[in-house]
Amino acid sequence: MFKETLQHYSSMIEEYIARIPWGKDILNESMAYSLVGGGKRIRPVLALASAEAVGGNPEKVLPAAAALELIHTYSLIHDDLPALDNDDYRRGRLSNHKVFGEANAILAGDGLLTYAFEFLTEPSLGQPGQQLRVIREVAVAAGKNGMVGGQVLDIAGEGKQLSLAEIEEIHKGKTGALLTVSARLGGILAGAAEQEIEALTRYAQALGLAFQIKDDILDVVGDSETLGKPVGSDLRQGKSTYVSLLGLEEATRQLHSQTEKAQAALKLLGEKSAFLSELAVYIEQRQH
Amino acid sequence: MFKETLQHYSSMIEEYIARIPWGKDILNESMAYSLVGGGKRIRPVLALASAEAVGGNPEKVLPAAAALELIHTYSLIHDDLPALDNDDYRRGRLSNHKVFGEANAILAGDGLLTYAFEFLTEPSLGQPGQQLRVIREVAVAAGKNGMVGGQVLDIAGEGKQLSLAEIEEIHKGKTGALLTVSARLGGILAGAAEQEIEALTRYAQALGLAFQIKDDILDVVGDSETLGKPVGSDLRQGKSTYVSLLGLEEATRQLHSQTEKAQAALKLLGEKSAFLSELAVYIEQRQH
Repeated sequence: MFKETLQHYSSMIEEYIARIPWGKDILNESMAYSLVGGGKRIRPVLALASAEAVGGNPEKVLPAAAALELIHTYSLIHDDLPALDNDDYRRGRLSNHKVFGEANAILAGDGLLTYAFEFLTEPSLGQPGQQLRVIREVAVAAGKNGMVGGQVLDIAGEGKQLSLAEIEEIHKGKTGALLTVSARLGGILAGAAEQEIEALTRYAQALGLAFQIKDDILDVVGDSETLGKPVGSDLRQGKSTYVSLLGLEEATRQLHSQTEKAQAALKLLGEKSAFLSELAVYIEQRQH
Repeated sequence: MFKETLQHYSSMIEEYIARIPWGKDILNESMAYSLVGGGKRIRPVLALASAEAVGGNPEKVLPAAAALELIHTYSLIHDDLPALDNDDYRRGRLSNHKVFGEANAILAGDGLLTYAFEFLTEPSLGQPGQQLRVIREVAVAAGKNGMVGGQVLDIAGEGKQLSLAEIEEIHKGKTGALLTVSARLGGILAGAAEQEIEALTRYAQALGLAFQIKDDILDVVGDSETLGKPVGSDLRQGKSTYVSLLGLEEATRQLHSQTEKAQAALKLLGEKSAFLSELAVYIEQRQH
């Protein structure tokens, strides 16, 4: 049942993304290259599932869910740039700047980030007050106190021995904030009660941490073909990770404890949140 | 009277920008470095003046006006990067990446763009429906069919002999779109009638063109000290400009004709638009 629902949400998102009308120029081409080129679509899935977990219609949330994937994709394009992580591969293909050049990659990222906010103003998304709240929360989560801030901390920490608290601070920004707002956004647009939005928040925070610990584990024990990127790149770049700090065994234990924490947060939402609960297990067990 | 009003609007904006609370880290420092470091603030001035020209209160528009300057500033930081225009100086000081490094400059730009959308959700800005319309228009103007699109065309055109139509296409995106939305935004948030918003649009389109022609002229005849950047950089980069294509005399004639066109568009708005009319003359005659 979980696999079918995941497939259903993924198809909704892929179809929505496939229908985005792109122009014929190099900018549109490079934006589409990175967006359409796969990825797990965790953020939009989280948005759709969160809307459904509070009794909303996931279909209605689609433009906002897609906006999250646009923002995630822009952040990957900029992260991969030579001045940042200098990664040649992403999602199993050449990274954007390897195909379109650095200038176009920077601008493709800018274009995707900006386009995301256009998606968030889609009139079908619902009541303007809710929509404004969502736009504000997304801007905060993606910005200097969220994703961009985490990215800067990450770069500043390269080659340094970081503490566990410092690593958590980086990931709360770099991946946690956008994952958390993905769940909140689904709840808000579905008209959830504040208490339900809070439950989704606690769920997504634990899920985000689990996601990151798993990422660090996969960088050590994963298979580069399944992952679509080289294994061991954190190590080579001298990054402190959960694994380098805690060891594989303790990192695996913490991954499991965050997964349980995520599931516990869903109690308030009852049966409707079964998919979210299984999603946490799926993330704990993923191989890519 | 014009000088006093311009000074008044500028002070409002500078004071508003000076009150933005920045964190103490390098990301906040680099964002603030480029934003606070001067500039003509044409876009926010245009927003405040347009609100007042339709009978609105410019004070109320300030957060949105500041957002325009954040977006403009982000675009300058990214434009100056080595992979793009590779400019070491901006507004008379070292460009962002020369001070903070390329990685931080890319992320400072990302942070400013994202922060701009947070400003646009400021609850004091007014009625949610108007606000959503403004956010959508700003996203379109700043995005792939506006500013970012113009920037990509600009880069693609370097070293090529462009036609006048191609140059206009570049500038419509690169500078025109954001200038136009600045005026529209002031009108929309002030609750202007559609006809008034249309008049502001025609005004700003002509003003934007005039602004760009003047930029090209100043790159040839300007004084690098007054400009705060080296003269002749378009020429060195092999860029086609209004001056390289039309000659100085014809470019100056077209500058004047666009200035008159901008003024003519204001007829509908009457006396309240006197400042906007004089602003067009000011832009025609500016030395930096």
